[in-house]
Amino acid sequence: MIAPIAVFDSGVGGLTVVGALRRELPAEAIVYLGDTARVPYGGKSQKTIERYSEEIARMLVAEGAKMVVVACNTASALALEHLRATISVPVVGVIDPGVQAALPATRSGHVAVIGTKATIGSGAYEKGLRAARADIRVTSIACPLLVPLIEEGMFDDEVTESVLRRYLSPLLGTDADAIVLGCTHYPLLAAAIARVLGPQFALVDSAANCASAVARRLAHDGILADVGTGSLELGFTDPPDRFLEVAGRALGLSTDSAAVRSVPPLGS
Amino acid sequence: MIAPIAVFDSGVGGLTVVGALRRELPAEAIVYLGDTARVPYGGKSQKTIERYSEEIARMLVAEGAKMVVVACNTASALALEHLRATISVPVVGVIDPGVQAALPATRSGHVAVIGTKATIGSGAYEKGLRAARADIRVTSIACPLLVPLIEEGMFDDEVTESVLRRYLSPLLGTDADAIVLGCTHYPLLAAAIARVLGPQFALVDSAANCASAVARRLAHDGILADVGTGSLELGFTDPPDRFLEVAGRALGLSTDSAAVRSVPPLGS
Repeated sequence: MIAPIAVFDSGVGGLTVVGALRRELPAEAIVYLGDTARVPYGGKSQKTIERYSEEIARMLVAEGAKMVVVACNTASALALEHLRATISVPVVGVIDPGVQAALPATRSGHVAVIGTKATIGSGAYEKGLRAARADIRVTSIACPLLVPLIEEGMFDDEVTESVLRRYLSPLLGTDADAIVLGCTHYPLLAAAIARVLGPQFALVDSAANCASAVARRLAHDGILADVGTGSLELGFTDPPDRFLEVAGRALGLSTDSAAVRSVPPLGS
Repeated sequence: MIAPIAVFDSGVGGLTVVGALRRELPAEAIVYLGDTARVPYGGKSQKTIERYSEEIARMLVAEGAKMVVVACNTASALALEHLRATISVPVVGVIDPGVQAALPATRSGHVAVIGTKATIGSGAYEKGLRAARADIRVTSIACPLLVPLIEEGMFDDEVTESVLRRYLSPLLGTDADAIVLGCTHYPLLAAAIARVLGPQFALVDSAANCASAVARRLAHDGILADVGTGSLELGFTDPPDRFLEVAGRALGLSTDSAAVRSVPPLGS
């Protein structure tokens, strides 16, 4: 038995990160927890998001996880410091990998970031981008309707395109040339976003970079699994609806098990 | 101190019911709990909705509530029987009041019902309407994007109208002539729904009828408060965002207090 990497998200969007982890680290055991009973996190407060994240991370660490991957931009933006202060294994989020992926993608030095209200409100991407490159310009746009549209499977739909045009039109005609998809759901809208923005924009998502960051950290700590076929176990706090099928098809994930699980509250 | 009426909803939509209760029963003390830390309920499973409803109802009854009003169609459709089996005070939901309001509103005998996926999937309105009138015809339509649009305050918006046209177009050209707004959020979209459907349709919501059902039950049980000015205390499990302001303005509610509260899990 190799110790698993625990990955969690508010719902199923984090499976985009799981897909990248499976490709980059095929020998690892991955345990995924989607908090579908409390989804979405993106409009909720920092205190609530910290509590949910800690409950889930404590449960997965108690079950033997050697690392926790926060495959949710909202939880990464608002709860990463809290998790690092309370959890005994390394914690990797998706914000810093997204920042690192954005830097080489822009020629103009003007980067757009889209995300949930909580992620954008936190300023986490702006802080990360500015810390990495002092002269960078950042335009951040909260896109609260995109997750509900994606959860409806409306990837290629005129309503979705008109919502995207509303959110993204401030970017058209500017010199912004890279856009960070600051929510793990958004890669499923990549085609529609590219249609609205045109070929000027590089689309940046953190999934592949997050998987690389996980691999580096495991190698550094000497706990990388490098032989065997690995495994993937999915858990959800509420039965996931048809979106799991849609995402599974879109991501080509094959899983060893999927179960409905409950998360113990803190202090229990 | 009069014993309060407890009213709960997954979020702030249930304030439409509180508005009707304040008008119908101005001498009552009302305690409202919006479960904004776990909103929305409408796409979640019956088991999860029963658990959330029981946790909230037990807490409010332990604090002295004389009645529990389930001001949420999803929880009324999926958890009312469970609550009546587990809670020691009378429980009033919004489905039956909505059914009673729909019956006199249709001339053709063809009624439309819109609601969340969970409410429509439960068939609760269809069962109630058919039990009341055997020859009634019912067209039920799940409208999962309406709550996110309302929570964004997009009451009067072309995106909202195009989503509504998508959902409601199967009704145009039929003899349906009444539509049940089977979600406590939806009265905030009444104007847009009327524009899409035209003057043929009577819009039916359960708020006023629910308040009347509460009044009848309190009178029947001899626990009606009929003197004094009453009060309204609001609680939310996560700080409510700007929607509370929007809804407060739309509903003209004045409150005595608003607080962030946590709901103890069952068994604690």
